[in-house]
Amino acid sequence: MYQLYIANKLYSSWSLRPWLLLKQLAIPFTEQLVPFGEGATQPHFLQFSPTGKVPCLHDAERTIWDSLAITEYLAERHTGVWPQDDDARAWARCAAAEMHSGFFALRQQCGMHCGVLIEMAQIDAALQRDLDRVAALWQEGLSRFGGPFLAGARFSAVDAFFAPVAIRVRAYQLPLPTPAAEYAQRLLNLPAMQQWLNEALAEPWLEPSHETEILAAGRLVQDLRQP
Amino acid sequence: MYQLYIANKLYSSWSLRPWLLLKQLAIPFTEQLVPFGEGATQPHFLQFSPTGKVPCLHDAERTIWDSLAITEYLAERHTGVWPQDDDARAWARCAAAEMHSGFFALRQQCGMHCGVLIEMAQIDAALQRDLDRVAALWQEGLSRFGGPFLAGARFSAVDAFFAPVAIRVRAYQLPLPTPAAEYAQRLLNLPAMQQWLNEALAEPWLEPSHETEILAAGRLVQDLRQP
Repeated sequence: MYQLYIANKLYSSWSLRPWLLLKQLAIPFTEQLVPFGEGATQPHFLQFSPTGKVPCLHDAERTIWDSLAITEYLAERHTGVWPQDDDARAWARCAAAEMHSGFFALRQQCGMHCGVLIEMAQIDAALQRDLDRVAALWQEGLSRFGGPFLAGARFSAVDAFFAPVAIRVRAYQLPLPTPAAEYAQRLLNLPAMQQWLNEALAEPWLEPSHETEILAAGRLVQDLRQP
Repeated sequence: MYQLYIANKLYSSWSLRPWLLLKQLAIPFTEQLVPFGEGATQPHFLQFSPTGKVPCLHDAERTIWDSLAITEYLAERHTGVWPQDDDARAWARCAAAEMHSGFFALRQQCGMHCGVLIEMAQIDAALQRDLDRVAALWQEGLSRFGGPFLAGARFSAVDAFFAPVAIRVRAYQLPLPTPAAEYAQRLLNLPAMQQWLNEALAEPWLEPSHETEILAAGRLVQDLRQP
């Protein structure tokens, strides 16, 4: 049985990716949630992850410590991780890898948070460039492969890689053109995403640096954790 | 025939990765070198790459626009891209993906440059953490899979991903423990790396922002472009 080490569902965008992929493909795994400690590094994560980062997948004696490497590891062992069609698979891998190494403004200015709605103070040029690229990429995939998912009729790893963006779009009310906004909502509506979001809201831990960072982005419109 | 779009060999670390992989595996391709223009974005790259970034591989009508996606695309079509052994392949993918999304301090403070030797003004804590991690990762691979390459006896994609680090180690005279330093030198000695370095020195273009950035890191010890 796979063991998937993740951090707080409220904050950990990287954790969400393989978690959602495993859930959507109905691949059995044991969730090992280890909350963030304070500070920029997480020395207690070194007990299960060589980089001190999450996610980290353990498969018996093997440790797979990066989200994209976890994806390829699963793709060798299970069907449906990537699309079957050659064109769709090549495109999906490019889009997922672009997310893996890019979109810095979006990631830095709009830290993932499942528990708040924020009105951004401003959308600067770098963030707008990232949003434009997200919209162009999503719309390309949806129109080229026919939707409703990015690379065709079935959910695949590329959707998992952009799932945290859907949460950011909701949290910061980021403007996207209609087809892209509808796709983000479609991701949020997935039962496994609803489970993640609900479990995030029920978490007992607040991590001060994440909370401060998020409130620095704009005005708090709603705290979804308040009943 | 594959067309591989790259930028200046003097500066473009991302371009080096798939270029070196293709050369080492003797996979035929046509090199399309398009020099950087000034500024943070490269609008003229949009003619061949949807992100405006390099590298970008064209295979007939298909465009593969990310270095890790190029690697997986080649792995589906050619042997030797990743190690055959399951453990070595899982490890190699993790290490390559970690390079793809991480090592920010090393990438930001020590921009790749094939034409200079620099004495760093200082090595701050973030850079030292990256160097420690490079050393630990390389030494783990070399000892676990027996060397001389990171994931065993044969060069594979994980070596290509760390090839720009070997150039940074040389350019900035970065301190590494012996096994890691020897591995960096081994990469530099590969005939294909020597070809890249020689062609970099022969390039007629200087890009001011790259040159300024590099000289900000420390004292110029030697300009290899001066005969």
